Amino acid sequence: MPASSSSIAVVGAGAVGSYYGALLARAGHAVTLIGRAAHVAAIRDKGLMLHKGGTVEAVRLDASTQIAAVRGADLVLCCVKSTDTDSVAREMAPHLNADALVLSLQNGVDNAAALAAVLPNTVLAAAVYVATAMPEPGSVQHFGRGDLVIGPLDAKAAHDPAVARQIERVVDLMAGADVPVKASADVRAELWNKLLVNCAYNAISALAQQPYGRMAAEREIVQLQRAVVHEVVAVAHAEGVALSLPESMAAMERIAGAMPAQFSSTAQDVARGKRSEIDHLNGTVVRLGAKHAIATPVNQALYALVKLVESARQAV
Amino acid sequence: MPASSSSIAVVGAGAVGSYYGALLARAGHAVTLIGRAAHVAAIRDKGLMLHKGGTVEAVRLDASTQIAAVRGADLVLCCVKSTDTDSVAREMAPHLNADALVLSLQNGVDNAAALAAVLPNTVLAAAVYVATAMPEPGSVQHFGRGDLVIGPLDAKAAHDPAVARQIERVVDLMAGADVPVKASADVRAELWNKLLVNCAYNAISALAQQPYGRMAAEREIVQLQRAVVHEVVAVAHAEGVALSLPESMAAMERIAGAMPAQFSSTAQDVARGKRSEIDHLNGTVVRLGAKHAIATPVNQALYALVKLVESARQAV
Repeated sequence: MPASSSSIAVVGAGAVGSYYGALLARAGHAVTLIGRAAHVAAIRDKGLMLHKGGTVEAVRLDASTQIAAVRGADLVLCCVKSTDTDSVAREMAPHLNADALVLSLQNGVDNAAALAAVLPNTVLAAAVYVATAMPEPGSVQHFGRGDLVIGPLDAKAAHDPAVARQIERVVDLMAGADVPVKASADVRAELWNKLLVNCAYNAISALAQQPYGRMAAEREIVQLQRAVVHEVVAVAHAEGVALSLPESMAAMERIAGAMPAQFSSTAQDVARGKRSEIDHLNGTVVRLGAKHAIATPVNQALYALVKLVESARQAV
Repeated sequence: MPASSSSIAVVGAGAVGSYYGALLARAGHAVTLIGRAAHVAAIRDKGLMLHKGGTVEAVRLDASTQIAAVRGADLVLCCVKSTDTDSVAREMAPHLNADALVLSLQNGVDNAAALAAVLPNTVLAAAVYVATAMPEPGSVQHFGRGDLVIGPLDAKAAHDPAVARQIERVVDLMAGADVPVKASADVRAELWNKLLVNCAYNAISALAQQPYGRMAAEREIVQLQRAVVHEVVAVAHAEGVALSLPESMAAMERIAGAMPAQFSSTAQDVARGKRSEIDHLNGTVVRLGAKHAIATPVNQALYALVKLVESARQAV
């Protein structure tokens, strides 16, 4: 993967994928966004409209609805929903360069492993801290942050010098595109910290269709969120990820103050009748808890309730 | 309280209170329903329209919006929502005959005790098994069952011969009005069994706005309901009510098959933006669990979620 000008494919060009694709294209790389027909058509027509810091800029880049457009890419950013990771990996496998690097920019703690289970390529994981949205096809709106923490799939890969070089290259590439980025040998801890916050906010916001500020105003809800965090930290420990309980608790509680008007992505999915990522949020905690014989009654309750809401929507 | 022709006041003439009031009035008793203005006006205009078994009958009885109308009653049926028990007890206290018997026909396990804490009168509790609704003011619709189990407030009262005589009288009175009724020294077990079913269905049906049949179709939801029952049985034991776990579990699971199209009263309250009885359902289990140092994480989760939904509605 040449760092000077790379060929980059973004698989799953939603808000996050389109945002990083735009920054990389602005830095001179050959970027192809692979996404839905309406988004692709709008981009081919006028370019990708990047709303950031009060300005709008039309970014010229390639776009396609075909997964085969990953062909020739040095770097593939995987930005699909966790529910689609496995199927997308199988679809892109026949088209992927043997030496292409695959970077997961997804929620959840199991996506990089799911990609690596299907693809022979090197897979890295990124914890993504960005607030973006797609106001309409062809447009991406940046609200805040945008930093990445990039690291290896697992502890074994962390000791592979070839993997270390690839991490260094992708960090340089992102930094060169004005993305705040750092490498971490322990990106799993970052992903678990994100998971923990998602487990404590997403389902509750979805079930009550309420923003984080209203949740924090209810003493009983904060008690419930603390119970969620206790369970997630216990499961993380069993998975070999040493999260600090006090730090995790404080990080969870800070979110509501930082984003009082925010509705979770799960709340937005439920409101639109779309399938959420709940299987990869509280669902992951329940599944891994069962594997380690750790009780996760509160995560199970939230998981079951969101599944019921989703199944009911699908039945209509 | 003469069994031949009694003076009976129904405090809180919703569907349940109006139904039993109608049956007692048909049996020749002097019944006064105390309820909302629209219901009272319709009853005064045309009588109470009782829809039962495919027929409609106009039942003549008295109606009032004033709590002072309990004056002179030998028997007071308390049918208000659990959230209103304490305030209604205080309001009726100055008007109540000293020898009036008060019978709670309410959900939850704490209403009779709440009445007795305010009133000097003898208070009995009834477990009510009836499906009724009010299609419009002045009308009550019977869908099924209608049986009562009546007993003393607590174990101490069960040994009071005067209380035993009053139970016998009210049982005779109800039986004479074609109400299937039995006395039980252990009405608390009946109330806890009802509470257990309510705890396992009401909040879930409310949060997902789904009927019981769809809940039973979701394996994860049934697992959640079983966790609820485990907690309620443990708290009941600590309260001195010996529920059988296998019987409780089986009773809970039967409900969905018996009433697949049913939405819980909590679901209906939430959908109408009304305050539900959740404080007296899962909320009671959480409160009593804390008193006995029994963990109730799943009841706490359901309780917190319904409180959040309610607080959000009130804030709009």
